[in-house]
Amino acid sequence: MVGKKIRMGMVGGGKNAFIGAVHRIAANMDGQIELVCGAFSSDPERSKESGKGLFIQDSRNYGSYKEMFKAEEKLPEDERMQFVSIVTPNFAHFEPAMLALEHGFHVLIDKPMTLSLEEAKKLEKKVTETGLLLCLTHTYSGYPMVKQARQMVKEGKFGAIRKIIVQYPQGWLSLPSGKDNKQAAWRTDPEKSGISGCMGDIGTHAAQLAEYVSNLKITKLCADINIVVENRALDDDGNIWLKFDNNANGVLIASQIAAGEENALSLRVYGEKGGLEWRQEEPNTLLVKWLDAPMQVYRTGHDYLSSFAKHNTRTPSGHPEGYLEAFGNIYRNFASTLQCLVEGGTASEEMLDFPTVQDGVRGMAFIENVVASGNSDQKWYEFKV
Amino acid sequence: MVGKKIRMGMVGGGKNAFIGAVHRIAANMDGQIELVCGAFSSDPERSKESGKGLFIQDSRNYGSYKEMFKAEEKLPEDERMQFVSIVTPNFAHFEPAMLALEHGFHVLIDKPMTLSLEEAKKLEKKVTETGLLLCLTHTYSGYPMVKQARQMVKEGKFGAIRKIIVQYPQGWLSLPSGKDNKQAAWRTDPEKSGISGCMGDIGTHAAQLAEYVSNLKITKLCADINIVVENRALDDDGNIWLKFDNNANGVLIASQIAAGEENALSLRVYGEKGGLEWRQEEPNTLLVKWLDAPMQVYRTGHDYLSSFAKHNTRTPSGHPEGYLEAFGNIYRNFASTLQCLVEGGTASEEMLDFPTVQDGVRGMAFIENVVASGNSDQKWYEFKV
Amino acid sequence: MVGKKIRMGMVGGGKNAFIGAVHRIAANMDGQIELVCGAFSSDPERSKESGKGLFIQDSRNYGSYKEMFKAEEKLPEDERMQFVSIVTPNFAHFEPAMLALEHGFHVLIDKPMTLSLEEAKKLEKKVTETGLLLCLTHTYSGYPMVKQARQMVKEGKFGAIRKIIVQYPQGWLSLPSGKDNKQAAWRTDPEKSGISGCMGDIGTHAAQLAEYVSNLKITKLCADINIVVENRALDDDGNIWLKFDNNANGVLIASQIAAGEENALSLRVYGEKGGLEWRQEEPNTLLVKWLDAPMQVYRTGHDYLSSFAKHNTRTPSGHPEGYLEAFGNIYRNFASTLQCLVEGGTASEEMLDFPTVQDGVRGMAFIENVVASGNSDQKWYEFKV
Amino acid sequence: MVGKKIRMGMVGGGKNAFIGAVHRIAANMDGQIELVCGAFSSDPERSKESGKGLFIQDSRNYGSYKEMFKAEEKLPEDERMQFVSIVTPNFAHFEPAMLALEHGFHVLIDKPMTLSLEEAKKLEKKVTETGLLLCLTHTYSGYPMVKQARQMVKEGKFGAIRKIIVQYPQGWLSLPSGKDNKQAAWRTDPEKSGISGCMGDIGTHAAQLAEYVSNLKITKLCADINIVVENRALDDDGNIWLKFDNNANGVLIASQIAAGEENALSLRVYGEKGGLEWRQEEPNTLLVKWLDAPMQVYRTGHDYLSSFAKHNTRTPSGHPEGYLEAFGNIYRNFASTLQCLVEGGTASEEMLDFPTVQDGVRGMAFIENVVASGNSDQKWYEFKV
Repeated sequence: MVGKKIRMGMVGGGKNAFIGAVHRIAANMDGQIELVCGAFSSDPERSKESGKGLFIQDSRNYGSYKEMFKAEEKLPEDERMQFVSIVTPNFAHFEPAMLALEHGFHVLIDKPMTLSLEEAKKLEKKVTETGLLLCLTHTYSGYPMVKQARQMVKEGKFGAIRKIIVQYPQGWLSLPSGKDNKQAAWRTDPEKSGISGCMGDIGTHAAQLAEYVSNLKITKLCADINIVVENRALDDDGNIWLKFDNNANGVLIASQIAAGEENALSLRVYGEKGGLEWRQEEPNTLLVKWLDAPMQVYRTGHDYLSSFAKHNTRTPSGHPEGYLEAFGNIYRNFASTLQCLVEGGTASEEMLDFPTVQDGVRGMAFIENVVASGNSDQKWYEFKV
Repeated sequence: MVGKKIRMGMVGGGKNAFIGAVHRIAANMDGQIELVCGAFSSDPERSKESGKGLFIQDSRNYGSYKEMFKAEEKLPEDERMQFVSIVTPNFAHFEPAMLALEHGFHVLIDKPMTLSLEEAKKLEKKVTETGLLLCLTHTYSGYPMVKQARQMVKEGKFGAIRKIIVQYPQGWLSLPSGKDNKQAAWRTDPEKSGISGCMGDIGTHAAQLAEYVSNLKITKLCADINIVVENRALDDDGNIWLKFDNNANGVLIASQIAAGEENALSLRVYGEKGGLEWRQEEPNTLLVKWLDAPMQVYRTGHDYLSSFAKHNTRTPSGHPEGYLEAFGNIYRNFASTLQCLVEGGTASEEMLDFPTVQDGVRGMAFIENVVASGNSDQKWYEFKV
Repeated sequence: MVGKKIRMGMVGGGKNAFIGAVHRIAANMDGQIELVCGAFSSDPERSKESGKGLFIQDSRNYGSYKEMFKAEEKLPEDERMQFVSIVTPNFAHFEPAMLALEHGFHVLIDKPMTLSLEEAKKLEKKVTETGLLLCLTHTYSGYPMVKQARQMVKEGKFGAIRKIIVQYPQGWLSLPSGKDNKQAAWRTDPEKSGISGCMGDIGTHAAQLAEYVSNLKITKLCADINIVVENRALDDDGNIWLKFDNNANGVLIASQIAAGEENALSLRVYGEKGGLEWRQEEPNTLLVKWLDAPMQVYRTGHDYLSSFAKHNTRTPSGHPEGYLEAFGNIYRNFASTLQCLVEGGTASEEMLDFPTVQDGVRGMAFIENVVASGNSDQKWYEFKV
Repeated sequence: MVGKKIRMGMVGGGKNAFIGAVHRIAANMDGQIELVCGAFSSDPERSKESGKGLFIQDSRNYGSYKEMFKAEEKLPEDERMQFVSIVTPNFAHFEPAMLALEHGFHVLIDKPMTLSLEEAKKLEKKVTETGLLLCLTHTYSGYPMVKQARQMVKEGKFGAIRKIIVQYPQGWLSLPSGKDNKQAAWRTDPEKSGISGCMGDIGTHAAQLAEYVSNLKITKLCADINIVVENRALDDDGNIWLKFDNNANGVLIASQIAAGEENALSLRVYGEKGGLEWRQEEPNTLLVKWLDAPMQVYRTGHDYLSSFAKHNTRTPSGHPEGYLEAFGNIYRNFASTLQCLVEGGTASEEMLDFPTVQDGVRGMAFIENVVASGNSDQKWYEFKV
C-alpha cells in the first residue's frame, strides 16, 4: 500500500442509523479508507449536523446526494471522492447508485440491492457499461471461516454436496413494531422495504451464504411465507425448500419472530464424505464432520487454513474477530481492488472475493421467486432471474 | 413398591440386536422388572441360545412367541409373564402384539408401532376392547428435560406457540448400506420397514416429539421426500413443513445421509414471549430464551423443575443421565402404572405419562400422510388419521 | 456369559440413601448381577423395610451385616452371595469390608475406601492374603472417554506430559449445611467423614482421575485448604499444586462452595505435542488439541476409539451415556472379572480395568498428605504412602 | 463529538509488528482518532518505510521518537500530536513514555508498563506531577461482558466473593522458540522482556482481570513458576495461589506451553449466592450461575445490561464483537476522556473506565512478587507494592 487512502463518500447513515455506523467502522478499521464527504440524511439540516459529528469538512458536508455527486465531480481528481457508500433503506438504493455510476463514482451498497429485480438488472447493465465497481455488503460472506468453508467445498473435501440447511432466526420483531423503533418501522413498510420483509432483509443473506459456500445455484424452490404478528404488512417468517443445480436439496428458514433468538444465522452443508457447520454468533469456529473420523474444529488464525481465510483475518488464533471485522473485510477487499485499479496493480483472487452487482441481481430474483412461490398452490417453483 | 417385581417376556432382541439390548437395560435399570421368559429370534435355535446368555430358565426360553404366549398363560398367575416387550423389526410388530393382547398380556412395543395405519387401528381397537396397556417406546419423550419443556409450554410460559423446528439428522446411511450391516439392511427394505425408511424410522420420533412438547397436533403438511443414495429402495432424507391446529407453522427435517452427524435430534419451539431449545446429544440441558431477559439454562436434577422432570431423574444435578435412562423412564412409568393396576393403587399423572397405542396410530398416520404428500404436486396436504 | 448371574449383597443403601440407589442401578443395568441379600441400615427395622422395597426375600433381608455374612456363608455355594457392595458413609467402610474378606466374600466399596491410611493398608494386606477381589468405585474412571484419554496418553500421542489441570467445583455446600440434608450432614462431620471433607469426598476423585489418565504418580504437593463456610468442621474448598514423577506440574482444585456449579469435574492434560480436555457434565466428548492442526472432537460409540472405550459403551454414537453407565461399567468389569474367576475364564485387559484396593490406599494417602501439607508453612510436601 | 479528531503519534509498530497493527485498528475503528505521526522503528530507514505504508505525511514520519517529540512540540497546538501510543517491546516502554510526558504529551502504552517496578513508580510520579493521562492497554478489561461482570459483583449480586479462578493457557511457546519467530524471540529474552516471561506477558493480564472484576486486591500469593521448555531463559508456565483483601482465595494459572490452546483466558468468580464465568474466546457471553435457579446467559447488546457494558458495545445482540473492539474500547474511552479534557467537558464514569498508570504499577508489582515467591520455600508471600 502506497500513495493515498481511498476516499469515500456516504449517502445515508445519519445519527442513530444502525447500519451507517457499522459501515463507517468497517471502512475505518484498516486505515485504508478516508471518509471525505457525505449526504447523511434526506433532511439537509440533519444531514449537515450528522456530518459535523463525523469530522467532515463543512464544504464537503452536503445537503443531498445529488449535490454531492455534482460538487465532488468538480474537485481535482486526487481529492474527490472515489466511491460512494449507500446505506439508506432499500427504497433509496437505486437512484443514488445509478446516479453515482453516471457521475463516474464506484459504488458500495447495502443489501438488498434495490426494490425490485427490474431495478437490479438496470444497475447491472450500468455497471457493465461503465466498467465501474459495485460492491454489495453481504456481510456474512466476509467471515474468514465462511471463506474457509467455501474453499473446502470447492476442493471437493466433502465429495458431491447433497443437502444444505441454512437458518436465520431472529426474535426482534416478535412484538408489533411500533413507530418508535426506526429499524423495525421501515423494514415492515412495503413502500420502503419492497415486496418482502423477512425474506428480503435476512432471507437474502441466507440464500447468498448457501450459494456462496456450496458453489451451487438454487434452481427450484417451494416457499411457505408467513405474517405471524397481526396487522403486519410484510412477511416476518418463512420456510423455503431449495433444489440446487447439482440436485442437492436444501432448507432455508428465516424468521424475525423466533422469540429469544438474536441473530442466529447458521449453515450446515452435507456431502458424500462429510459435512460442515458454521454459526454466525460464534464465527471463528468451523465444525468439520466426517463419516468415520473425529469431528475437527477449524479456528481462525491458524496456519492450516486456506489463503482466503487467512487474508481475511487480522489477529492470531484465539483473538476473536466478529461482525465488524467481517464487514471490514468486504470494505478492505473492495478498497484493495479499487486501489489496484487506480494504481495499476493486479488484485489478488483473495481481494476480488467480495459480493458484486451479480449477487445483487440474484438476491432480488430470490425475493421475487420466493414471493411468487409463496402465493402458489403448486409445490415447486422454478427459480427465474 | 411392595410385593414382587413385574415379570416381562421378550419377543426379538437376540444376540447382536441393537434395540433389544437397549430394551433390556432400560427394563433392568430400576430393579422393578424381571425378564422371566423370551422368544428372542425367529430361528428357534438362535432364540434358545440367546435366552441362555440372558440367564433365562430353560423351561421359559421359548422357540417362538406363539409357544411362549400359550405356555405362559398356563403358569400360575403370580409366576407368569405380565407383559411382553416386542423388539423385532417393524414388520414383525403387529402379529405378536395382537396375539399377546388376545392372550391377556400387556404389551410394550418399539416404534413405529406397525407396518401400516390399518394395522395400527386394529391394535388400538383391541387395546380398547381388552383394557390392557400398550406402551410405545418413543424414547425421546422419556427425557426429563423434554418433559420440563412440555410442562412449560402447557403452563403458557411462552404464550401462544408460533413456530416449531424439529431436526433429526443422522449420517450413518450416507454410504450404500451393505448386507453386512444388519441395522441398515432391514431399515432400507420395504418388506421389513414399510412404505418409508427415514421418515418411518426417525421422522416419526421427530413428529411425536414436536406434538408432545407443544401440546399441538399437526393438521397439514408438505413433504419433500428424497432417496439420496443411489439404488436405495426407501427414502433416506426428507424435509416437511407442518401446520399445527393453532395455526403455528413448523419444519421437520429428518435425514440419514447428513454425513458426520450422529443422532442429532433437536427441537426448538417459539412462542409469543420466548422459546425453548433442546438437543438430544446433550439432553440434560434445556435452553429457555426470552424476549427481554437473559437466556436461562435449565438443567436436570434441580429443585426448580416440574414434578414431571423430577420424577424422571435418578441423580442430582451434574450427574448426566442419558439415552438409556430416558428409555428406562418409559419402562419405569409403564411398570409403575402396571403395578398400580395389579395391586390396586392409583397411578400418578407422572407415571401415566408414557406413549400409548394412540401415539402409535398417530405415528403410522404420519408416515402415510408424509408419503402421500411427497407424491403430490400440491403444496399442502391435509393430515388424516 | 453363561451359567448364572453374579450374586450380590449390600451393606447400607437403605431408603433415601443417594449412593446406595446409584449402586443398585449400576449393578442392575446389565442384567449380569442379582441383588440377593442385604443389610441396608444400621437400624434393623429400617434395614428390613428397605429390603422389602427392593424385592429381597425375607430370609435374606438381614438386620446387620454381621448377621448377613454369617448366614450367607452357610448357604449352598451356588446360592450364597458372591460379593458384597458396601455403600455406607466413610466411617462404616472398614469393618464390614474386613469382615467380608474374612468370611471369604469379594468386596466392592465406595470411595474413599476407609477413614485412615492405616485402615486402608490393613485392607490391602487382607486382600493380598485372601486373594479375593476388592473393587473401589471411582466412578469417573468408568467413563469411556476417560479410558480413551488414558489410552491416547499411554500410546504417547501427546509426547511427554507436562501439565495437568484437574478441577472439581461443586456449589451444594455453599450454605451452612443443616441437619435436614442427610448427604451434607455426614460429609461435614469428622467422625463420619474422616480428617477431610471436600478433599476426601471429591478431591480424591480428582487425584485418581489425574493419575489414571496421565499414567503418572503424584510425588509432591502443596495444599491450600480452606473452611469457607463459618462453623464448618471440615474443609469445603481447596487448591493443590502437584508435581508428578516425570516432573510434570499440576493443579488440583476442589470446592464445594463454588456457588452455582453442579458437579463440574474436568480434566486437562498437556503434553509436548498436544493436549486433551474432558468434562464430566458432557462426558461423551473428548477434546483432543494439537499444536498445528484443528482440534478433534472424539465421541463415544465410534469405530475409531480404543478397545477400552468401546468395551465400556452400550450404544452407538449420539446416544448419550452418563454417570450411571460409568458406574455400571465398574460393576460390569468387576462382575465379569469375578465371573472369569468363578468359571475359570481369563479376564480381558478391558475387564480388569477397574479401581482396586491399591487405588484405595493411594486415595487415603492423598487425603493424609493433603491435610499435612495444608498445615505446613513450607511450600512443597513429599507425597508419602 | 464536535471539533476535530484526536491526533495520535506512534512509537514502534513498524511492519510485521503484531501489536502495533492491533493498536492502529483499535485507534481507527471509531473514526475519532487520527494517526498523524510516528517513529515506527528503532531503525530510521525502516521507520520511514513503515510510515509511508501507513499514509503518514513525509514531514511527520520520524526517524526516532526523540526527534518526533521535539518536532511535534513545535507545531501549532491544533495540529500537533496530542498523545503518543507506545507499542514497542517491554524494555522500550519507559524511556519514550517518560520523555513524552516531559514534552507534555499524553501517553497510551502497552502492558506490562515497564521493565521494573521501580520504573513504573517513576512513571506514576511523573503522571501525577504533570496531570497528563496515561492509559495502559489491558485489553481484556475492555470487553463489555467483563465490565458487566464487574458491575454485578460491585452491586453485590453474588454476595461476598469467596473464590476466584483465572486461567490463561496458551500453547504457542510449546516448542523451543527459534529466532524466526519475532514475537517469541523478544518475549523469551530477559533483556527485552524483564525478569519474567509468561507471568509478565499474560500473567499480568490475568491478575488485572481478576482484580478488576472482583473489585478486590491481592494481598498474598504463593507461586510455582516453571521453565518447561529446555534452555529457555524465562518462565513459560506457572500456577499461583492468591489471597485477596476480603480473605477470598484464588488460583491463577498462566501457561504458554499448554499445547493446543490458543488464547484461552477465562475467569470464574464465586460468591455466597452465585458465580460468574467468562471466556475470552467467546467474549460476548457471560454465564451467571445461581445456587437455586437456572444459570443465566448474559449476552452483549441487550437492554438488560449495565451502562458500562452498553457503552462499550457497537452493535445489537447477536453481532459478535471481539478482541479488536475490546481494544478499541480502551482507545475510545481514553480518547473521549482526552476530548473532554481538551474541550472542557466532563468525562462520564463509563469513559473514565480504562486502565491507568496505577494498573501499570500494580502489574509490575505483581511480576516482582511472583518471581520472589517463586524463589521462596515458604508457602505464602506478602504482596508488596
